[in-house]
Amino acid sequence: MDEFYMKRALELAKLGEGYTNPNPLVGAVIVKDGKIIGEGYHERYGGPHAEINAFKNAKDDVKGSTLYVTLEPCSHYGKTPPCADAIIEKKIKRVVAAMKDPNPLVAGKGLEKLIKSGIEVRLGVLEDEAKKLNEIFIKYITTKTPFVILKSAMTLDGKIASFSGDSKWITNEKSRDYVHSVRQRVSAIMAGIGTVINDNPHLTARKEGNVIKDLTRIIVDTNLKIPLNSNVLDTKVSKTIIACSEYADNNKIEKLKNLGVYIIKTPLKDNRVDIKYLIKSLGELNIDSVLLEGGGILNFSALKEGIVDKVMIFIAPKIIGGESSKTPVEGEGFEFIKDAVKIEDISIKSFDEDILYEGYIKR
Amino acid sequence: MDEFYMKRALELAKLGEGYTNPNPLVGAVIVKDGKIIGEGYHERYGGPHAEINAFKNAKDDVKGSTLYVTLEPCSHYGKTPPCADAIIEKKIKRVVAAMKDPNPLVAGKGLEKLIKSGIEVRLGVLEDEAKKLNEIFIKYITTKTPFVILKSAMTLDGKIASFSGDSKWITNEKSRDYVHSVRQRVSAIMAGIGTVINDNPHLTARKEGNVIKDLTRIIVDTNLKIPLNSNVLDTKVSKTIIACSEYADNNKIEKLKNLGVYIIKTPLKDNRVDIKYLIKSLGELNIDSVLLEGGGILNFSALKEGIVDKVMIFIAPKIIGGESSKTPVEGEGFEFIKDAVKIEDISIKSFDEDILYEGYIKR
Repeated sequence: MDEFYMKRALELAKLGEGYTNPNPLVGAVIVKDGKIIGEGYHERYGGPHAEINAFKNAKDDVKGSTLYVTLEPCSHYGKTPPCADAIIEKKIKRVVAAMKDPNPLVAGKGLEKLIKSGIEVRLGVLEDEAKKLNEIFIKYITTKTPFVILKSAMTLDGKIASFSGDSKWITNEKSRDYVHSVRQRVSAIMAGIGTVINDNPHLTARKEGNVIKDLTRIIVDTNLKIPLNSNVLDTKVSKTIIACSEYADNNKIEKLKNLGVYIIKTPLKDNRVDIKYLIKSLGELNIDSVLLEGGGILNFSALKEGIVDKVMIFIAPKIIGGESSKTPVEGEGFEFIKDAVKIEDISIKSFDEDILYEGYIKR
Repeated sequence: MDEFYMKRALELAKLGEGYTNPNPLVGAVIVKDGKIIGEGYHERYGGPHAEINAFKNAKDDVKGSTLYVTLEPCSHYGKTPPCADAIIEKKIKRVVAAMKDPNPLVAGKGLEKLIKSGIEVRLGVLEDEAKKLNEIFIKYITTKTPFVILKSAMTLDGKIASFSGDSKWITNEKSRDYVHSVRQRVSAIMAGIGTVINDNPHLTARKEGNVIKDLTRIIVDTNLKIPLNSNVLDTKVSKTIIACSEYADNNKIEKLKNLGVYIIKTPLKDNRVDIKYLIKSLGELNIDSVLLEGGGILNFSALKEGIVDKVMIFIAPKIIGGESSKTPVEGEGFEFIKDAVKIEDISIKSFDEDILYEGYIKR
């Protein structure tokens, strides 16, 4: 039955998606005499932890019950007091946790505290699911650099636009809606200057026409070619960061700053923004996750520099052809197939006749 | 229970794959008192039909039994006498057929004959499965042109080779073995002269190193650039057809004919072999199916001219990048996404971490 209740706790955790970054998604279920008497989850960054919400929502005395929680309860003072103390105080009998806290500084300490106080502890129930749910948090807390998802949408013959540049629409509405729901779950969206100049996108997360989250937009623009009337420069809608060369024009920088844009200057690497440097800078700004929606050049740089963690490739049931049509990953390319970037842990979703190919970069 | 026995008949039919072309795949099961008393299938071109084999294999008197057959029994004299007559003669009580004979000249006549003689007939059990099993036969018998399957193998970013031309190996061994099993099920394999010059392939169907079927190879070579020492010109291993322009060099044609090559001259279309003309000529040569393993130019021509029926795209979990890397469909391309070739009835198979995307061209 532990799996059953943990599954419910994982469902609860998911409800916080898009609101807890850079905190983890956590769900908790309190079970007494075979009945769920309390449920809770971490609802938003800075708010109470899942365990505390479950206690608050409990319909019965929690004394002697079992607590299921998707992440090891914390033992340190952060924005809220330690959950381990609350669990002990409430006289919980048994705690089942899906996974240890991935933060190396505190991992295991919460459970230890519980065990020392005589609480029975079980660790590792649905651990893989819990780790997947918090893949962003785990990456960020252990490396201080954001979890990067490369997203692209192509035809079955590997094109992201026709030879004439037409790309509206390669994928169907369901796929495009799903992209918006993914955007809601990350802290930032990244695109190259080519995309900004060609498509003038807003790069916001929309639902039924409304921008529903203050998503940070990151534009990689080595030489600051961005037109000042670009949609992404409307910083009233969403924050915008532009990454440029340390040699970029200071006049243009001033103009952009006046529009409310945050500028990150990086050293040059292969005459372009040093993407590894950039990604570290983003981590320092508390950005735990980036959805990379680049063109072929930016995507190749990101893959070559090893900053990508996951790929999401939509494949539409269309063939467009064209020797000069753009493809999702271009740049110089790898010379030999044996040196290609490898993908593992692959899964396929379908959105009517579009498919979504998801996988993780093999290290 | 009709579905249950028809499923078995379809399984039997499949055993003939690769041996019956241009005849259909047909399986038959005889059931009496709830027991299978006889099974048979069409084993090879020119051999007895499935019904006759089932009668031959019956362990009991078939009188009063039910016959399940994946295709309407024939009513005409071909290489063998009509099965409908044999069924009447054997005093079968009931006949269940998956589908009508797709040949417009005889469709329905076999069943009519049975009904007239007082046999109970049910039509349409597992019809979709039966039609899929005989997609090659149906196309060929109704149009006299071969069923064409476009096959390609690409990386997740849509490349069939790296910028340097390396393509060994994009897909894994299981995928490549499966391609050989597909080759065994078709009459011919088609490639462009580019592939012959760059890769010098054998284009045979191999199993454990042995060539196991006399598969016809078709090379599209407008200006007869083929080197005379190419592996595909070894006509002792397999038959070879070369399609060239009607203006091709007669000297070279003579040399190729001396090697045992069959030449098809076609009018020029866009300065290349007229692929529609070619495909009709192949139909006249009794070729009911072609596996197109072309490069980007030939694949685009074939799609643009509307000769492709099905696509099989292997997608390997690798990203190779490269602005100049080759992609599965190139040529000029379609200008707008709305004019792209559409794929429907999609299915996904997996071969370890490779996936195979299959679908049919939407007309």
